[in-house]
Amino acid sequence: MAPPHVIVPFSGADPKTRLEPLLSAAERGRLARAMLSDVLAAVSGAGAESTVLATEPVDADLAERVIVDERPLSAAVNARLESEGPVAVVMADLALATPEALEGLFATDGEVVVAPGRGGGTNALVVRHPDFSVDYHGVSYLDHRERAREVGAVVETVDSFRLATDVDEPEDVVEVLVHGDGESRDALEGMGFEIAVRDGRVGVARR
Amino acid sequence: MAPPHVIVPFSGADPKTRLEPLLSAAERGRLARAMLSDVLAAVSGAGAESTVLATEPVDADLAERVIVDERPLSAAVNARLESEGPVAVVMADLALATPEALEGLFATDGEVVVAPGRGGGTNALVVRHPDFSVDYHGVSYLDHRERAREVGAVVETVDSFRLATDVDEPEDVVEVLVHGDGESRDALEGMGFEIAVRDGRVGVARR
Repeated sequence: MAPPHVIVPFSGADPKTRLEPLLSAAERGRLARAMLSDVLAAVSGAGAESTVLATEPVDADLAERVIVDERPLSAAVNARLESEGPVAVVMADLALATPEALEGLFATDGEVVVAPGRGGGTNALVVRHPDFSVDYHGVSYLDHRERAREVGAVVETVDSFRLATDVDEPEDVVEVLVHGDGESRDALEGMGFEIAVRDGRVGVARR
Repeated sequence: MAPPHVIVPFSGADPKTRLEPLLSAAERGRLARAMLSDVLAAVSGAGAESTVLATEPVDADLAERVIVDERPLSAAVNARLESEGPVAVVMADLALATPEALEGLFATDGEVVVAPGRGGGTNALVVRHPDFSVDYHGVSYLDHRERAREVGAVVETVDSFRLATDVDEPEDVVEVLVHGDGESRDALEGMGFEIAVRDGRVGVARR
């Protein structure tokens, strides 16, 4: 089975605001770009082609094309679902994504295949049913399963820690330092971050 | 390949103290017991037998036996590693563990197979090398990989969101309500917890 075409939504303006306690605006932008790069490299490594669906023009050498759509995430993704055949939608902040994890997603049968994220999110999706649409607001993992059932689509879930880990909050940064091996980890190390253990709990410190 | 015997360490006295902001001592005890039950059911569903390695006597119908060892976690587990053949060590707070996730762990080749937990932890392990020992303090995922290399053991990692999710902190409780379907979820619902979305972020509320 050929891998689906992959849409990677990317928000270029003031990204990753929840990382403000840890990073300046410029650093958040640098990390977001590094994570996008890592995701696109993993997609390519899994044998799939990608489209970056960006809120503003962005340089993404590893993608086949960039489409700029200023609408909110769900509206922009649904426009792509309507105009393309079967596609995958993979978030741009999955810094731990590997070709193997994505191959597992792509190889899972089902008309809608969901890789959940922490906190009820949907970090990656394969959509092979014409009537399915996304809504990333709220507990999107449950909403997407419900929506799939409503349109009569067979829904499956993929169990992957790497795909479940989106980098949104300061506590997520430690996952990149422990498990990452791409540009995102290099970027964080370049900014002086390292793993630190305090009172038996693992976090990050900055040199 | 027959599944390994599974050691499930369980701390019966004042468990899950990091959940104090959310739960009383009695409720933490109830949740801890429910999670142990769910883990033992998943182990049994994966075709494996289990030993609960408890700090004090505990009733665990689903386990083949209970061994009481008052020593700290790592010392108690290492005593079992020395006296048993190949074993798995699966934490008692993996409320999302399923037979399928554990089968994936057991079926992975390697003399040391690690299922990482959030925050650099080691949530489940298979040990098939006589010289390997555990140290759960600190960034145990990295330490266990390093220890495996030191003793010349082939080390593999298992990529599972269900095995990566241990229930330690208040934010972990939402994962049980979203993805759980066992006694842990029943216990939380019985205590009045439900999923709640505030400012676009998914958490829990209590009725």
